[in-house]
Amino acid sequence: MRGAVLYAPGDVRVEEREDPKIVEPTDAIIRLSATCVCGSDLWPYRGIEAVDGPAPMGHEYAGIVQEVGSQVRTIKPGQFVVGSFFASDNTCPICQAGYQSSCIHRELIGANGAQAESLRVPLADGTLVATPDLPSDDLVPSLLAASDVLGTGWFGAVAAEAGPGKTVAVVGDGAVGLLAVLAASQLGAERIIAMSRHEPRQQLAIEFGATDIVTERGDDGVAEVKERTGGLGAHSVVEAVGTQESMLQAIRSTRPGGHVGYVGVAHGVELPGTELFYSHVHLHGGPAPVRRFLPELIDLIWNRQIDPGKVFDLALPLEQAGAGYQAMDQRQAIKVLLHP
Amino acid sequence: MRGAVLYAPGDVRVEEREDPKIVEPTDAIIRLSATCVCGSDLWPYRGIEAVDGPAPMGHEYAGIVQEVGSQVRTIKPGQFVVGSFFASDNTCPICQAGYQSSCIHRELIGANGAQAESLRVPLADGTLVATPDLPSDDLVPSLLAASDVLGTGWFGAVAAEAGPGKTVAVVGDGAVGLLAVLAASQLGAERIIAMSRHEPRQQLAIEFGATDIVTERGDDGVAEVKERTGGLGAHSVVEAVGTQESMLQAIRSTRPGGHVGYVGVAHGVELPGTELFYSHVHLHGGPAPVRRFLPELIDLIWNRQIDPGKVFDLALPLEQAGAGYQAMDQRQAIKVLLHP
Repeated sequence: MRGAVLYAPGDVRVEEREDPKIVEPTDAIIRLSATCVCGSDLWPYRGIEAVDGPAPMGHEYAGIVQEVGSQVRTIKPGQFVVGSFFASDNTCPICQAGYQSSCIHRELIGANGAQAESLRVPLADGTLVATPDLPSDDLVPSLLAASDVLGTGWFGAVAAEAGPGKTVAVVGDGAVGLLAVLAASQLGAERIIAMSRHEPRQQLAIEFGATDIVTERGDDGVAEVKERTGGLGAHSVVEAVGTQESMLQAIRSTRPGGHVGYVGVAHGVELPGTELFYSHVHLHGGPAPVRRFLPELIDLIWNRQIDPGKVFDLALPLEQAGAGYQAMDQRQAIKVLLHP
Repeated sequence: MRGAVLYAPGDVRVEEREDPKIVEPTDAIIRLSATCVCGSDLWPYRGIEAVDGPAPMGHEYAGIVQEVGSQVRTIKPGQFVVGSFFASDNTCPICQAGYQSSCIHRELIGANGAQAESLRVPLADGTLVATPDLPSDDLVPSLLAASDVLGTGWFGAVAAEAGPGKTVAVVGDGAVGLLAVLAASQLGAERIIAMSRHEPRQQLAIEFGATDIVTERGDDGVAEVKERTGGLGAHSVVEAVGTQESMLQAIRSTRPGGHVGYVGVAHGVELPGTELFYSHVHLHGGPAPVRRFLPELIDLIWNRQIDPGKVFDLALPLEQAGAGYQAMDQRQAIKVLLHP
């Protein structure tokens, strides 16, 4: 099959890879209907994260089950399924508490490379959620978004305790940040401040439910959020970048007793203990337990109550994955969908 | 009046200080029935925190109202009252959300020096809580404990979401840690792991409700907590020290999705962002909003359901405050009560 492989920073090639096979009896093989490039794929693409030899890329997927192992009970060939970037058994105490991305048997999907024609998914019964029927083509981008970027934005909003009566600020205008705006809106937030200086992203934030746009960053951004919240800061702040600056901006934009939900993969972040202590914020985040939210998200998409697929503003054939990375790296695209 | 003053690390003197007077119309003057030395007083006493000139010391207090300013409405002369180390209006949005120690009008009591015969308390109506009647002498130590050390341990347990069905670990066996054990027990925790290697403190932890004692520290302590929790870590961990080692021990002892409540005043703490991200813990803490809990705590003490005053294992006349600091510094006493 064809699949994307990262050789070195900036060097993504689509080449012939071995067809995936059932390895464990709990595996499933999926023929992908769509896959995409993640903001987190840019860390190694930019050389900020080390690239370890030629590495298959991609961890977001939706498609049709081709084959299942002998111990797979609920997932059946022919079903259209969505899964998360961590495979999980969905039965251990950590999964049962809603933290499937820390499942005691978790496996990273990325190691198998989902930017490809087919994918092996471990722990299929725990990991995959089937749609009620085969989806029409126009629903596929939104279902694919549920695999990571929507589930991650949603977790950020839940971790920040977005809800009725709350003012929510979102730091980061990538696809995750924009979908955190959508999530905050769905969760009933009263006011949603999207922090963005890019006009097309501002527009999408407004479509997704943002009530305020703040273009300032860093300390100026913090001051502007405080200005708009009676000097107190937002009740809830979603951090969707992962840098030291964005984490501090998020913490400082939150009122005492408020909640920071952080979902940007941390890179070079060191949180000053004294400032955190006196900030009085709640801090929660990490790799989103997307599996917790998948049934609800699929339902919202299936019933056309939300359209998170709008974050894909560029769709390319899988063969042009390299161009997709480049477009996201240069912020010419918010998020790139790849057709295998 | 007489009062304790820190001149330099290790140099606490009890000397004549000016009698406190009403400054603002919202002030009250209290004649202290008891005061005490706090673990946080040891930071400047040990020279870890800078000592700024001769500084009046102490921020824990309980006593009888002598005089109130012209705008004080609910607090009356003659009442026995307890207050927290931050004065707060108890009406601003931050107070209303339960974070009185971040009140927009907060004032640090420590600046007035509560290790003394009398004390000026700003924002008296918001800050002070009166007991139902004048307490008998044997209740005074417990009421004094509510002023900080009990309220702080309680906040730690609440921030860690201690409750029924939960396993709670407590890092730190000072008075705050021991009272976090008591709080976890009152909040209904199923299992309470006290981390202590000091026999008298272990005994008090058990009296307060600890079910397990772990003597190991650092990575060994983490391993032992995991060993006792099916390899997962505790649901709730209270951090009651404030060092880098104790914070990391607390975070690492918590299962993914669990809660760390941190109340040790942070000194030299820098939290590694990547580890925190993948830990999946909830992190919350800071200066305890003791005022939130005071009515409930006073009630529990008044009805003799809890006896937090047991943490005072040494009582001295105020004149011997210096010896009190020394005893706590050298861990000869858990907590020292001072009789003015």
